[in-house]
Amino acid sequence: MPTNKIGILGFGCVGQGLYDVLQENHQLEVARICVRDKNKERKLPASAFTFDAQELLQDESLVILTELISDPAEALTLIRQALEAGKTVVSANKKAVAENLPELIALQQKYGSRLLYEAAVCGSIPILRTLESYYADEPMQEVNGILNGSSNYILTRLDTEGISYKEALQQAQELGFAEADPTLDVGGYDALHKICIIAAHAFGVVVDVREVLRFGIESITTEDVDLAHKLGARIKLVASAKYTAAQQLQVQVLPTFVWPDNELYYVQNEFNGVQLEAKYAGKQFLKGRGAGSHPTGSAVWADVSAALKGYKYTYPKLKPAPAAPATNTLQLYIRSKGDFPIPDIKWEEVVSFGVSHEAVQLVGVVKKEELLRHQATLESRSTFVVEVPEALSAMEFIQKALQQERVVA
Amino acid sequence: MPTNKIGILGFGCVGQGLYDVLQENHQLEVARICVRDKNKERKLPASAFTFDAQELLQDESLVILTELISDPAEALTLIRQALEAGKTVVSANKKAVAENLPELIALQQKYGSRLLYEAAVCGSIPILRTLESYYADEPMQEVNGILNGSSNYILTRLDTEGISYKEALQQAQELGFAEADPTLDVGGYDALHKICIIAAHAFGVVVDVREVLRFGIESITTEDVDLAHKLGARIKLVASAKYTAAQQLQVQVLPTFVWPDNELYYVQNEFNGVQLEAKYAGKQFLKGRGAGSHPTGSAVWADVSAALKGYKYTYPKLKPAPAAPATNTLQLYIRSKGDFPIPDIKWEEVVSFGVSHEAVQLVGVVKKEELLRHQATLESRSTFVVEVPEALSAMEFIQKALQQERVVA
Repeated sequence: MPTNKIGILGFGCVGQGLYDVLQENHQLEVARICVRDKNKERKLPASAFTFDAQELLQDESLVILTELISDPAEALTLIRQALEAGKTVVSANKKAVAENLPELIALQQKYGSRLLYEAAVCGSIPILRTLESYYADEPMQEVNGILNGSSNYILTRLDTEGISYKEALQQAQELGFAEADPTLDVGGYDALHKICIIAAHAFGVVVDVREVLRFGIESITTEDVDLAHKLGARIKLVASAKYTAAQQLQVQVLPTFVWPDNELYYVQNEFNGVQLEAKYAGKQFLKGRGAGSHPTGSAVWADVSAALKGYKYTYPKLKPAPAAPATNTLQLYIRSKGDFPIPDIKWEEVVSFGVSHEAVQLVGVVKKEELLRHQATLESRSTFVVEVPEALSAMEFIQKALQQERVVA
Repeated sequence: MPTNKIGILGFGCVGQGLYDVLQENHQLEVARICVRDKNKERKLPASAFTFDAQELLQDESLVILTELISDPAEALTLIRQALEAGKTVVSANKKAVAENLPELIALQQKYGSRLLYEAAVCGSIPILRTLESYYADEPMQEVNGILNGSSNYILTRLDTEGISYKEALQQAQELGFAEADPTLDVGGYDALHKICIIAAHAFGVVVDVREVLRFGIESITTEDVDLAHKLGARIKLVASAKYTAAQQLQVQVLPTFVWPDNELYYVQNEFNGVQLEAKYAGKQFLKGRGAGSHPTGSAVWADVSAALKGYKYTYPKLKPAPAAPATNTLQLYIRSKGDFPIPDIKWEEVVSFGVSHEAVQLVGVVKKEELLRHQATLESRSTFVVEVPEALSAMEFIQKALQQERVVA
């Protein structure tokens, strides 16, 4: 019989996954589990639950508290309270963590409490642990990856089945890979929260989530997918953080053309993949399940188990000042519906190559600030924006885009 | 000016890589570096070196000692002496560690000393740290991968350029990807040492390296590579450790047919890749540089840096008794020169499909003990042995192997 008790706030997908892991290893006794909905049917008897989070927060017999609820605002309130009480907390809430990192770090320092959140970033992939512990004393140059399983599942369906975005989204929702309101996932916000958390551990830089360039995949059409096929590429929603030549940290979430020489090309369906580039270790690639009850429950358990042995984040690279947004340019493909013109963006250079009554397609280079200035308009007009890596010139891009369909034997 | 001193035994590829990393981060002062050859030209002045390992081993001012020499027997002697003196040692010597793990663990416990050896396994990939710390409390089901960069470089050249094994080996040697005596690499011994170390951390099982099934790639011909192309596969040297249905740990190193649905298919050139399967986290994949001065120097530095903060291996899953060898069967493709018969192996089932005066090709299922019994004969006769995953039946294999060459447009 275990002598230490754990508190679980939330019994959704992740909470149930953690519960299963805890049942197997018998290292901790589960206190009553806090849930909100009094009428939902659950696989445990009613006596296993409480509806009062304070019952757990004020239970001095708990050695650890796990926060696995979906509401970010409520999650933040609970994490705050627990950290102020000196507790050890494990959270899976990426939004609450990403948007409040400076405060959450300060609370840990002030109250000697601890917060771990591996499960908030890429489910089962031990990316934060690797950055925090293994690369603590090695400079990182870049981290990028596919950090959102729902949107990657949808993009994979579009790529392999030629169905529409709407059909693919519906499929993902039916299979539980996307929420009823998919905005956080397909709009790129979820990946944005994750890359901001990664940036803090990889580069020691706290990034203001509101200042990060972010486009989602909602406006993708089969026309864009066909273009990717012609290019020999796939479109992936890529989140990245890297140093520019001017040593500014450039953080962004953008649909991106990815070729087979890039590991991310092979990250399909609901999987996540992360590429790291460290100064001496060189390129590393990690791939695993980014979501799911047991994979994410396992990540929570890895934090719980490490915390019980004294592990805590030390933020070894943390810089005192937040980062100024990078001032870089981007090479983009843009497709806009043809019955109205693309907003008056000032391009550094631009070529349109697919003007019809259906759509306008162009490829060009634009300053980041300029793109941000027009973001709301572009999004409201269902314009699809994809980054074209600089290794491919605009002219090469267009040549490939305009080539005849290959004859398949 | 750093106040702590580090000792470096050996100034080859890895030692020089570590030295570069240390020069950048200024956290440790390097004591005199111990080398053997008095006449070799080196990039540092003569005063930086000593030829007497005892000068470092008996220097009480060193906080850490790194053992980066190539001779496994001498490495073992030095590691032993350092551990008996209560020191903290970081080694990159896979052979010395793999063959003496029980003794090295016992020495650490007896003398309160510490030994870390991440750099011994897959260069820059943080596989041991991940298994030791992150998956400390989660059962593992399988670990497999491409753990030897030299042989993978050769196999990639064979696959992509259609050159002979001899030519590819020579190329690898010229580029520094293979040693003058390549036996450890191409014979599968290096991968064997690595998978045995992995097995101790992943499953807590100490495996006797002499009892592990191991075949190398020395006898591969373009005929085998052509066959792989017909099958839509690649031949990779795969090391694996997994639980059989009978809950025995099956450890082996074998050339293996690998298809595009397997991550290892895309691990090319000198790269290493490792797949893990954990009970709840599911499948994980890690890829990075398996060798090279800076990548391996970075892995040594990651150990040094962690050791300075108090990190040590705890071998959380270590079982008291060594593992009995698993009694499994294998589905194999075998190609033997045709001018003499394949030794009298008792097959569970077997079909030959390519009998000519050049070679005999067959596919069949055999008990592991039976294969081991004939290993020396098979190797002496330059027979090439490749595992055929059970997902493909022998009949499907032969059908594909006998199909007409596809006409390439």
